[in-house]
Amino acid sequence: MSKGLSFLREAIVGRPNDDVAVDEDRRTAPQALDAPDGRARAVVDAVLPAVDGGRFAVKRVAGECVTIEAHVFTDGHDVPRVMLQWWKEGSTRREELPMKLRNNDEWHASFVAPAPGRYRYTVLAWVDAFESWHHEMQRRVEPQDIRIAARVGAQDIRAAAARASGSDRDELTQWAGALEEGAADAQMDTAALKAMALDEQRTATVRRFPDRQLQVRFAAELPLVVERLRARFGSWYELFPRSAGDAPGAHGTLRDVAQRLPLVAAMGFDVLYMPPIHPIGRVQRKGRNNTLVTEPGDVGSPWAIGAQEGGHKALLPELGTLEDFQALVADALQLGVELAMDIAFQCAPDHPYVKEHPAWFRWRPDGSVQYAENPPKKYQDIYPFNFESEDWQGLWEELKSVIEFWIAQGVKIFRVDNPHTKSFAFWEWVIGEIKREHPDAIFLAEAFTRPKVMHRLAKLGYSQSYTYFTWRNSKEELTRYFTELTEAPGVDYFRPNAWPNTPDILHAALQGGQEAVFKSRLLLAATLSANYGIYGPAYELMEHLPRMSNGTASEEYLDSEKYELRSWDWSGDAGLRPLITRINEIRRSNAALQDNRGLTFLRIDNDHLVAYMKQSEDGANVIVTVVNLDPWNTQTGWLALDPRELGIEEDQPFQMHDLLTDQRFVWRGRHHYIQLDPHRLPAHVMSVRQRLRDERDFDYFQ
Amino acid sequence: MSKGLSFLREAIVGRPNDDVAVDEDRRTAPQALDAPDGRARAVVDAVLPAVDGGRFAVKRVAGECVTIEAHVFTDGHDVPRVMLQWWKEGSTRREELPMKLRNNDEWHASFVAPAPGRYRYTVLAWVDAFESWHHEMQRRVEPQDIRIAARVGAQDIRAAAARASGSDRDELTQWAGALEEGAADAQMDTAALKAMALDEQRTATVRRFPDRQLQVRFAAELPLVVERLRARFGSWYELFPRSAGDAPGAHGTLRDVAQRLPLVAAMGFDVLYMPPIHPIGRVQRKGRNNTLVTEPGDVGSPWAIGAQEGGHKALLPELGTLEDFQALVADALQLGVELAMDIAFQCAPDHPYVKEHPAWFRWRPDGSVQYAENPPKKYQDIYPFNFESEDWQGLWEELKSVIEFWIAQGVKIFRVDNPHTKSFAFWEWVIGEIKREHPDAIFLAEAFTRPKVMHRLAKLGYSQSYTYFTWRNSKEELTRYFTELTEAPGVDYFRPNAWPNTPDILHAALQGGQEAVFKSRLLLAATLSANYGIYGPAYELMEHLPRMSNGTASEEYLDSEKYELRSWDWSGDAGLRPLITRINEIRRSNAALQDNRGLTFLRIDNDHLVAYMKQSEDGANVIVTVVNLDPWNTQTGWLALDPRELGIEEDQPFQMHDLLTDQRFVWRGRHHYIQLDPHRLPAHVMSVRQRLRDERDFDYFQ
Repeated sequence: MSKGLSFLREAIVGRPNDDVAVDEDRRTAPQALDAPDGRARAVVDAVLPAVDGGRFAVKRVAGECVTIEAHVFTDGHDVPRVMLQWWKEGSTRREELPMKLRNNDEWHASFVAPAPGRYRYTVLAWVDAFESWHHEMQRRVEPQDIRIAARVGAQDIRAAAARASGSDRDELTQWAGALEEGAADAQMDTAALKAMALDEQRTATVRRFPDRQLQVRFAAELPLVVERLRARFGSWYELFPRSAGDAPGAHGTLRDVAQRLPLVAAMGFDVLYMPPIHPIGRVQRKGRNNTLVTEPGDVGSPWAIGAQEGGHKALLPELGTLEDFQALVADALQLGVELAMDIAFQCAPDHPYVKEHPAWFRWRPDGSVQYAENPPKKYQDIYPFNFESEDWQGLWEELKSVIEFWIAQGVKIFRVDNPHTKSFAFWEWVIGEIKREHPDAIFLAEAFTRPKVMHRLAKLGYSQSYTYFTWRNSKEELTRYFTELTEAPGVDYFRPNAWPNTPDILHAALQGGQEAVFKSRLLLAATLSANYGIYGPAYELMEHLPRMSNGTASEEYLDSEKYELRSWDWSGDAGLRPLITRINEIRRSNAALQDNRGLTFLRIDNDHLVAYMKQSEDGANVIVTVVNLDPWNTQTGWLALDPRELGIEEDQPFQMHDLLTDQRFVWRGRHHYIQLDPHRLPAHVMSVRQRLRDERDFDYFQ
Repeated sequence: MSKGLSFLREAIVGRPNDDVAVDEDRRTAPQALDAPDGRARAVVDAVLPAVDGGRFAVKRVAGECVTIEAHVFTDGHDVPRVMLQWWKEGSTRREELPMKLRNNDEWHASFVAPAPGRYRYTVLAWVDAFESWHHEMQRRVEPQDIRIAARVGAQDIRAAAARASGSDRDELTQWAGALEEGAADAQMDTAALKAMALDEQRTATVRRFPDRQLQVRFAAELPLVVERLRARFGSWYELFPRSAGDAPGAHGTLRDVAQRLPLVAAMGFDVLYMPPIHPIGRVQRKGRNNTLVTEPGDVGSPWAIGAQEGGHKALLPELGTLEDFQALVADALQLGVELAMDIAFQCAPDHPYVKEHPAWFRWRPDGSVQYAENPPKKYQDIYPFNFESEDWQGLWEELKSVIEFWIAQGVKIFRVDNPHTKSFAFWEWVIGEIKREHPDAIFLAEAFTRPKVMHRLAKLGYSQSYTYFTWRNSKEELTRYFTELTEAPGVDYFRPNAWPNTPDILHAALQGGQEAVFKSRLLLAATLSANYGIYGPAYELMEHLPRMSNGTASEEYLDSEKYELRSWDWSGDAGLRPLITRINEIRRSNAALQDNRGLTFLRIDNDHLVAYMKQSEDGANVIVTVVNLDPWNTQTGWLALDPRELGIEEDQPFQMHDLLTDQRFVWRGRHHYIQLDPHRLPAHVMSVRQRLRDERDFDYFQ
């Protein structure tokens, strides 16, 4: 049993049919649930955003604006004051910001997310007697009411003076006295008395000394995880190092990968992700095209990790040495590319762990280790860890040390293979632990699984997640899915990373090999999702033949790199590389494409055309994308886009600048003609230029 | 300070800029957040319904089906078992029900809400080794796999045997042995071995002895308040007792009200609600039509409570004695009508509390009590209680005793006047206290206030709430509002009570006096909302003249009963009484109209026509209502209603029975013609007859 029991929150493990004594909730004396003093009248009904009431953290990136909303009110007409409190976990210093009422009892305050780390926030509120008085005084008309109100206000001001000191106290005491004198002076004009009572400068002084004795504190301290920008925005490129060489048939090396870095950087990718680079098991090794029998020279699947040369902390000797790896990390960083490591917590039968830690595996009565299976499917080359092991603590520690090992080599981004087949409690712990020491670590979940499982992984700490994008192809599917991804509460913890292909998924839409499909899926991923990636060079070279299985096309690539070496064309202008380069340039220079918030689908009267707008947080950058989903025919339609939503006057022309082609269109009104020929380019990615110059901008017009 | 401080949950009151030491969350040893044992692999991601994560209770009525949904899964392909646990608060006995997987990791279980009271529920789950094995065994094909699996299963079965006893233990031990022998016997047919392993009866035995060591418990124990049916369904009738007499100008009495009971009962009302019946203040008494000056004989507003004769526990002498009141309660019950009391926690200036408990009021520097005001509006006849009083505990106790006093007289339903101008913490406490002793007490909030305030009152314990129905008149407004009211989470705690009029609100739509409007608003309220009410006889006699204010029509009635005696026609067939009688009969005999769930708006291609369907919980009762909102013209339209949604085959004719007129229509297909002449009746309220008889039902057809 772990030392950490003291950390338990509310959760207990019972036995079946426990007759547990229940805390009796038998109150009789008057008491309030939200505050110890029944006189506390402010209500903090909700604080947003929140994930599962604070069980999980909201995610933001450093430098981003964090806007907190609180639903606060009180009984009657009195005026609450509301404070947002936020702090770094573990710090005693708390920041406090006044919240402002927008409407409908919704109060807001914002702060800039600081350096990566874990933070908390909550809201405090109290009914402010002075503020309520001030609010009423503004609307008072009758002289007698004003006189009495001035005397009431003087009481509150004297109370504030007692909480103040020095010149503030003097100022307030004097003001209270003047109000009382004025109220008593029958000669004094009550309009002047009212003006004195509403004096702005002195009002501001009182506000600095509020009476917070009866403040109410929202019950939850909501967690916030701040990550670095790359968690929210990045373009990923996946390649198999063993196919990175020039000579066909020769096993590629990490040095070969280093040779590809300039191309990857030139294409504008931020992250270079490599499948596992560890020794590959020899026992039960899979042959080409996932066959059960190997032939001499078969290299096996990189995800069958571990052999006599070592396991998760070792390198496949054919790829090179740890020094080569460190050099690759350094070279990449020089070019602005970060290396992403694959974390696949599973073992080949000959992984050293099997002998060294038999307790970490599930043993069958025949003395063999239980391999991965989902009957009738079997994966004899993979031994899963047994997360119900008696030595689960030893297992967790060792797996954590794997991540730490690669962090020590300079890696900060981890793509995690099939996280949903490992214990969720483990992931929550290990990601929390790693990020506590390394708040800039980023974890991408390969969570191709059921929706709730996928979301749980995001909640418990994954920075990003693979998505169903690959299987969302029609206008309706794309619209519904990306609308869902940009809505609360998911948008606050689930960051999609959209991939048109992966080594495991060659979607049927791509199997026709049409260039227009490869282009449109690329552009959709790159403009719908702030994080996207491709598995190359298969993607840009439009590799499209599937492996046939019982006469039907599978979603696997024919002659997949997962099981054999491949040789690729690495020239800079091959296939879609120029288009990829262009779209990545566009992504880097347009803030709207670097965030998933601010996505709005636009109406267009053709089901082959999907149109959407992305706006940057500050509203200054607006990108409108229209994609023709039909790879065969030119499609036309009328796009509904009201210029007033862009801050442009209704009858003012504005310019749409297609960033892919550099074409410029002048639009006016609310409906705009679109025509897209898939044989040229199946999409517009247009920047909105706020206003066109006209004669009034000409020097002599004035 | 209250004794109840120990009850505080998480909420603390801080001082400004507290440098509070924060619990450091510095874990290093492996540990899970949801369970003390890291091997616990089940995940309970959500339990629904829940209101604010369990801070407030979900509401149901006794006899209703309570369906709980849990989102439960585990890593990989293993099979969780999920249990719903529920119990009465304060009881040590816990009921446990197995939950069933519907789809998408959503598990369900239902129980019938027991007697009114407070309950709790939560969910437990564990990964079940035997169940996972059983699930895999079903799909195993290869003989060798089946043999090994039989041996694995035998281990789990032996473990279950160890948890069992007596004949169960013997049965399981024998079964495990047989499986092991069969697996070892090379002659044994593996199909037979598999069949033996999947034996249903023995499987059921194992399931009774699960291994729950690693079970996970959802962190929250969610509260459930069960009320009696009247909280969910009831027809209310409001009348002013002082206008209940026969002789014009004579002050009506409680005995006069008793004379009206047969009429109220005959009209089919369940609840008779009377404005306050306490002594009415004389100081600052309002005159007719809300004037500031009274004339001799002016009776004042019943909401200006308290005079020398007494306060909230006294009766206005003109109305009668406490014995009269008790007799009225008893007479009403005889006729199936319950009396609802008005709770208006405010005082006239001459209320005895003002002298006896000066600390309960806010005093101004001139020695006067602060009356109610919202500058520039003043209500000098009303002194609000000061919920920030030093003696707040004394105030709370006294107000609670007022409710208890009337419960002792036989009243169990309370309509609370302006609850949003009294402390929310007080309401939560007092309703909780009262319902703990009297779980059948019902509270209706007159919460004509902002949406979040209205919802908070419902959350903290009000059984029902007045709504914005009065101001929702167009098809779009009605559709949007009632859709919102029937959606989670509101539907789980907010029960609307829809009123087409109140003594305070004569909506402009009624001011034209058209009979069709009075009819349609009545029928909308009675069919859209399970709880509805009218303020009569003003409503059914179609009283429609507003008091003019500065030349424009107010929403107040002209010559309102709030300030003077009125005399009414009490004959059974006057005005809309026959229609009211009919619709209340329909409500009583159709379960679909007794619940707010199961409301679906139907498409109809005319904006003057609004159409909707209500289905009872068991689906057996379906009511389709169509209302013509245009009081002038006959309107026609095509109603979209797919018979398949009613369980009727697509090409099968079905009968629609208009329960208002007894007309019967035969419909077929998906689109149905509607024609409504407002001068006859502006609505259809139709029951769906599931299937028409045809020749196949005729005896000789077979």
